Amino acid sequence: MEFNDHMQAALEEARAAARRGEVPVGAVLVSPEGAIVARAGNRTRELSDPTAHAEILVIRARCAELQSERLPGHDLYVTLEPCAMCATALSAARIRRLYYGAPDSKSGGVAHGARVFTHPQCHHAPEIYDGIAEADAAALLRNFFAPRR
Amino acid sequence: MEFNDHMQAALEEARAAARRGEVPVGAVLVSPEGAIVARAGNRTRELSDPTAHAEILVIRARCAELQSERLPGHDLYVTLEPCAMCATALSAARIRRLYYGAPDSKSGGVAHGARVFTHPQCHHAPEIYDGIAEADAAALLRNFFAPRR
Repeated sequence: MEFNDHMQAALEEARAAARRGEVPVGAVLVSPEGAIVARAGNRTRELSDPTAHAEILVIRARCAELQSERLPGHDLYVTLEPCAMCATALSAARIRRLYYGAPDSKSGGVAHGARVFTHPQCHHAPEIYDGIAEADAAALLRNFFAPRR
Repeated sequence: MEFNDHMQAALEEARAAARRGEVPVGAVLVSPEGAIVARAGNRTRELSDPTAHAEILVIRARCAELQSERLPGHDLYVTLEPCAMCATALSAARIRRLYYGAPDSKSGGVAHGARVFTHPQCHHAPEIYDGIAEADAAALLRNFFAPRR
Protein backbone atom coordinates (compact mmCIF):
# COMPACT_ATOMS: atom_id res chain seq x y z
CA MET A 1 0.00 0.00 0.00
CA GLU A 2 1.31 3.39 -0.98
CA PHE A 3 0.76 5.06 2.35
CA ASN A 4 2.75 2.32 4.05
CA ASP A 5 5.67 2.87 1.66
CA HIS A 6 5.63 6.58 2.45
CA MET A 7 5.59 5.92 6.19
CA GLN A 8 8.45 3.44 5.75
CA ALA A 9 10.44 6.24 4.13
CA ALA A 10 9.62 8.49 7.09
CA LEU A 11 10.75 5.72 9.47
CA GLU A 12 14.07 5.51 7.59
CA GLU A 13 14.54 9.22 8.20
CA ALA A 14 13.73 8.72 11.89
CA ARG A 15 16.36 5.97 12.15
CA ALA A 16 18.92 8.17 10.45
CA ALA A 17 18.10 10.94 12.93
CA ALA A 18 18.72 8.55 15.83
CA ARG A 19 22.14 7.67 14.40
CA ARG A 20 22.98 11.39 14.41
CA GLY A 21 21.95 11.66 18.09
CA GLU A 22 18.74 13.51 17.25
CA VAL A 23 15.29 12.67 18.59
CA PRO A 24 14.20 9.97 16.10
CA VAL A 25 11.34 11.55 14.23
CA GLY A 26 11.20 11.47 10.43
CA ALA A 27 8.93 12.99 7.80
CA VAL A 28 8.37 12.88 4.07
CA LEU A 29 6.33 15.17 1.89
CA VAL A 30 4.36 13.73 -1.04
CA SER A 31 3.41 15.80 -4.08
CA PRO A 32 -0.08 15.89 -5.60
CA GLU A 33 1.29 13.42 -8.19
CA GLY A 34 2.22 10.95 -5.41
CA ALA A 35 6.00 11.34 -5.44
CA ILE A 36 8.16 11.91 -2.37
CA VAL A 37 9.51 15.43 -2.92
CA ALA A 38 11.19 16.12 0.44
CA ARG A 39 12.40 14.00 3.34
CA ALA A 40 14.03 14.85 6.65
CA GLY A 41 14.65 13.77 10.19
CA ASN A 42 14.98 16.08 13.19
CA ARG A 43 18.12 18.24 13.09
CA THR A 44 17.63 20.55 16.07
CA ARG A 45 20.99 19.65 17.62
CA GLU A 46 23.03 19.63 14.43
CA LEU A 47 21.61 22.96 13.28
CA SER A 48 21.27 24.56 16.75
CA ASP A 49 17.71 25.37 15.70
CA PRO A 50 14.77 24.53 17.99
CA THR A 51 12.45 24.82 14.97
CA ALA A 52 14.32 22.17 12.94
CA HIS A 53 11.74 19.43 13.45
CA ALA A 54 11.36 16.98 10.57
CA GLU A 55 8.00 18.45 9.53
CA ILE A 56 9.31 22.02 9.40
CA LEU A 57 12.36 20.95 7.40
CA VAL A 58 10.36 19.21 4.66
CA ILE A 59 7.89 22.08 4.41
CA ARG A 60 10.65 24.67 4.14
CA ALA A 61 12.54 22.63 1.57
CA ARG A 62 9.56 22.10 -0.71
CA CYS A 63 8.33 25.70 -0.38
CA ALA A 64 11.80 26.93 -1.35
CA GLU A 65 11.84 24.59 -4.35
CA LEU A 66 8.43 25.74 -5.56
CA GLN A 67 9.00 29.36 -4.49
CA SER A 68 5.65 29.25 -2.75
CA GLU A 69 4.41 29.77 0.80
CA ARG A 70 1.75 27.12 0.28
CA LEU A 71 1.76 23.49 -0.77
CA PRO A 72 -1.80 22.66 -1.82
CA GLY A 73 -2.37 19.00 -2.63
CA HIS A 74 0.71 17.88 -0.72
CA ASP A 75 0.51 15.18 1.96
CA LEU A 76 2.85 14.89 4.93
CA TYR A 77 3.87 11.63 6.58
CA VAL A 78 5.56 11.83 9.97
CA THR A 79 6.42 9.10 12.45
CA LEU A 80 5.15 10.99 15.52
CA GLU A 81 2.16 13.18 16.27
CA PRO A 82 3.26 16.74 15.42
CA CYS A 83 3.77 19.32 18.17
CA ALA A 84 1.76 22.55 18.13
CA MET A 85 4.51 24.36 16.23
CA CYS A 86 4.57 21.83 13.42
CA ALA A 87 0.79 21.45 13.31
CA THR A 88 0.44 25.22 12.86
CA ALA A 89 3.09 25.21 10.14
CA LEU A 90 1.20 22.41 8.33
CA SER A 91 -1.89 24.57 8.46
CA ALA A 92 -0.07 27.67 7.16
CA ALA A 93 1.36 25.60 4.28
CA ARG A 94 -2.12 24.25 3.44
CA ILE A 95 -1.00 20.62 3.63
CA ARG A 96 -3.84 18.41 2.36
CA ARG A 97 -3.46 15.25 4.44
CA LEU A 98 -1.46 14.45 7.55
CA TYR A 99 -0.50 10.82 8.21
CA TYR A 100 1.24 10.16 11.49
CA GLY A 101 2.53 7.14 13.39
CA ALA A 102 2.67 7.20 17.18
CA PRO A 103 0.59 9.50 19.35
CA ASP A 104 2.60 11.89 21.54
CA SER A 105 0.86 12.44 24.84
CA LYS A 106 3.91 14.28 26.19
CA SER A 107 4.39 16.97 23.53
CA GLY A 108 1.76 16.45 20.82
CA GLY A 109 -0.39 19.31 19.59
CA VAL A 110 -2.85 17.53 17.29
CA ALA A 111 -4.71 14.97 19.43
CA HIS A 112 -3.30 16.33 22.70
CA GLY A 113 -2.75 19.66 24.44
CA ALA A 114 -3.15 22.64 22.12
CA ARG A 115 -5.16 20.58 19.57
CA VAL A 116 -4.21 23.17 17.00
CA PHE A 117 -6.64 22.14 14.25
CA THR A 118 -9.76 22.38 16.43
CA HIS A 119 -9.87 26.17 16.93
CA PRO A 120 -11.35 28.89 14.73
CA GLN A 121 -7.90 30.55 14.78
CA CYS A 122 -6.74 27.65 12.58
CA HIS A 123 -7.63 28.60 9.00
CA HIS A 124 -6.90 25.28 7.32
CA ALA A 125 -6.98 21.78 8.77
CA PRO A 126 -5.57 18.79 6.89
CA GLU A 127 -7.39 15.48 6.81
CA ILE A 128 -5.77 13.39 9.54
CA TYR A 129 -4.86 9.69 9.51
CA ASP A 130 -3.17 8.45 12.67
CA GLY A 131 -1.69 5.19 13.89
CA ILE A 132 0.17 4.38 10.62
CA ALA A 133 3.06 2.03 11.54
CA GLU A 134 2.55 3.24 15.10
CA ALA A 135 4.39 0.34 16.76
CA ASP A 136 7.56 0.88 14.72
CA ALA A 137 7.58 4.63 15.35
CA ALA A 138 6.98 4.22 19.07
CA ALA A 139 9.67 1.51 19.41
CA LEU A 140 12.23 3.80 17.78
CA LEU A 141 11.55 6.54 20.31
CA ARG A 142 11.50 4.11 23.22
CA ASN A 143 14.84 2.60 22.23
CA PHE A 144 16.34 6.05 21.78
CA PHE A 145 15.29 7.41 25.14
CA ALA A 146 15.68 4.22 27.25
CA PRO A 147 19.47 4.48 27.79
CA ARG A 148 19.15 8.23 28.41
CA ARG A 149 16.71 7.88 31.29
CA MET B 1 11.26 52.87 29.89
CA GLU B 2 13.40 50.12 28.49
CA PHE B 3 10.57 47.84 27.49
CA ASN B 4 9.05 50.65 25.49
CA ASP B 5 12.33 51.19 23.61
CA HIS B 6 12.46 47.51 22.75
CA MET B 7 8.87 47.54 21.52
CA GLN B 8 9.63 50.64 19.44
CA ALA B 9 12.43 48.67 17.77
CA ALA B 10 9.97 45.86 17.07
CA LEU B 11 7.53 48.39 15.59
CA GLU B 12 10.30 49.67 13.29
CA GLU B 13 10.75 46.11 12.04
CA ALA B 14 7.00 45.82 11.50
CA ARG B 15 6.98 49.03 9.43
CA ALA B 16 9.91 47.77 7.37
CA ALA B 17 7.99 44.52 6.75
CA ALA B 18 5.00 46.51 5.50
CA ARG B 19 7.25 48.38 3.04
CA ARG B 20 8.35 44.99 1.67
CA GLY B 21 4.73 43.90 1.21
CA GLU B 22 4.85 41.54 4.15
CA VAL B 23 2.30 41.32 6.96
CA PRO B 24 3.58 44.05 9.30
CA VAL B 25 4.73 42.17 12.36
CA GLY B 26 8.13 42.82 13.91
CA ALA B 27 10.14 41.27 16.72
CA VAL B 28 13.33 41.84 18.63
CA LEU B 29 15.18 39.52 20.95
CA VAL B 30 16.89 40.91 24.06
CA SER B 31 19.84 39.18 25.73
CA PRO B 32 20.10 38.54 29.47
CA GLU B 33 22.35 41.64 29.55
CA GLY B 34 19.54 43.77 28.09
CA ALA B 35 20.91 44.28 24.56
CA ILE B 36 18.93 43.74 21.37
CA VAL B 37 20.70 40.77 19.78
CA ALA B 38 18.34 39.95 16.89
CA ARG B 39 15.60 41.81 15.04
CA ALA B 40 13.30 40.85 12.18
CA GLY B 41 10.01 41.46 10.46
CA ASN B 42 7.93 38.84 8.70
CA ARG B 43 9.55 37.50 5.51
CA THR B 44 7.20 34.70 4.49
CA ARG B 45 6.69 36.10 0.98
CA GLU B 46 10.28 37.09 0.29
CA LEU B 47 11.64 33.74 1.50
CA SER B 48 8.71 31.59 0.28
CA ASP B 49 8.66 30.16 3.79
CA PRO B 50 5.41 29.91 5.75
CA THR B 51 7.47 29.59 8.95
CA ALA B 52 9.34 32.88 8.41
CA HIS B 53 7.40 34.82 11.02
CA ALA B 54 9.32 37.56 12.84
CA GLU B 55 9.52 35.53 16.06
CA ILE B 56 10.90 32.42 14.34
CA LEU B 57 13.49 34.48 12.46
CA VAL B 58 14.93 36.13 15.58
CA ILE B 59 15.01 32.85 17.49
CA ARG B 60 16.78 31.04 14.65
CA ALA B 61 19.27 33.86 14.20
CA ARG B 62 20.26 34.03 17.85
CA CYS B 63 20.38 30.23 18.28
CA ALA B 64 22.69 30.02 15.26
CA GLU B 65 24.91 32.75 16.70
CA LEU B 66 25.15 31.04 20.10
CA GLN B 67 25.21 27.53 18.61
CA SER B 68 22.47 26.58 21.04
CA GLU B 69 18.93 25.23 20.78
CA ARG B 70 17.92 27.24 23.82
CA LEU B 71 18.04 30.90 24.79
CA PRO B 72 17.63 31.02 28.57
CA GLY B 73 17.33 34.53 29.97
CA HIS B 74 16.35 36.02 26.62
CA ASP B 75 13.21 38.14 26.25
CA LEU B 76 11.19 38.50 23.05
CA TYR B 77 9.27 41.60 22.02
CA VAL B 78 6.77 41.24 19.19
CA THR B 79 4.16 43.66 17.92
CA LEU B 80 1.35 41.07 17.64
CA GLU B 81 0.19 38.14 19.76
CA PRO B 82 2.16 35.12 18.49
CA CYS B 83 0.41 32.34 16.60
CA ALA B 84 0.53 28.77 17.93
CA MET B 85 3.61 27.98 15.82
CA CYS B 86 5.61 30.87 17.23
CA ALA B 87 4.36 30.37 20.78
CA THR B 88 5.55 26.75 20.67
CA ALA B 89 8.91 27.82 19.25
CA LEU B 90 9.28 30.35 22.09
CA SER B 91 8.64 27.54 24.53
CA ALA B 92 11.15 25.21 22.84
CA ALA B 93 13.78 27.97 22.94
CA ARG B 94 13.09 28.58 26.65
CA ILE B 95 12.46 32.31 26.13
CA ARG B 96 12.17 33.97 29.55
CA ARG B 97 9.66 36.75 28.93
CA LEU B 98 7.27 37.49 26.09
CA TYR B 99 6.16 41.09 25.56
CA TYR B 100 3.57 41.61 22.86
CA GLY B 101 1.54 44.48 21.45
CA ALA B 102 -1.86 43.87 19.90
CA PRO B 103 -4.01 40.83 20.64
CA ASP B 104 -4.80 38.64 17.60
CA SER B 105 -8.27 37.19 17.90
CA LYS B 106 -8.06 35.90 14.31
CA SER B 107 -4.84 33.87 14.42
CA GLY B 108 -3.35 34.19 17.91
CA GLY B 109 -2.25 31.15 19.87
CA VAL B 110 -1.37 32.65 23.26
CA ALA B 111 -4.54 34.34 24.58
CA HIS B 112 -6.75 32.83 21.87
CA GLY B 113 -7.39 29.49 20.19
CA ALA B 114 -4.72 26.91 20.94
CA ARG B 115 -3.52 28.84 24.05
CA VAL B 116 -0.24 26.98 23.73
CA PHE B 117 1.22 27.84 27.11
CA THR B 118 -1.73 26.53 29.13
CA HIS B 119 -1.35 22.80 28.44
CA PRO B 120 0.81 20.18 30.18
CA GLN B 121 2.28 19.40 26.72
CA CYS B 122 4.01 22.79 26.93
CA HIS B 123 7.20 22.25 28.93
CA HIS B 124 8.21 25.87 29.42
CA ALA B 125 6.04 28.98 29.50
CA PRO B 126 7.53 32.48 29.40
CA GLU B 127 6.25 35.26 31.62
CA ILE B 128 3.78 37.19 29.47
CA TYR B 129 3.26 40.96 29.25
CA ASP B 130 0.64 42.01 26.73
CA GLY B 131 -0.76 45.29 25.45
CA ILE B 132 2.67 47.03 25.08
CA ALA B 133 2.23 49.82 22.47
CA GLU B 134 -0.90 47.95 21.43
CA ALA B 135 -2.51 50.90 19.58
CA ASP B 136 0.54 51.45 17.34
CA ALA B 137 0.85 47.76 16.49
CA ALA B 138 -2.86 47.41 15.74
CA ALA B 139 -2.92 50.57 13.58
CA LEU B 140 -0.04 49.24 11.47
CA LEU B 141 -1.94 46.05 10.73
CA ARG B 142 -5.20 47.89 10.08
CA ASN B 143 -3.55 50.28 7.63
CA PHE B 144 -1.84 47.40 5.87
CA PHE B 145 -4.93 45.28 5.38
CA ALA B 146 -7.48 48.06 4.76
CA PRO B 147 -6.68 48.63 1.04
CA ARG B 148 -6.48 44.85 0.53
CA ARG B 149 -9.98 44.09 1.80
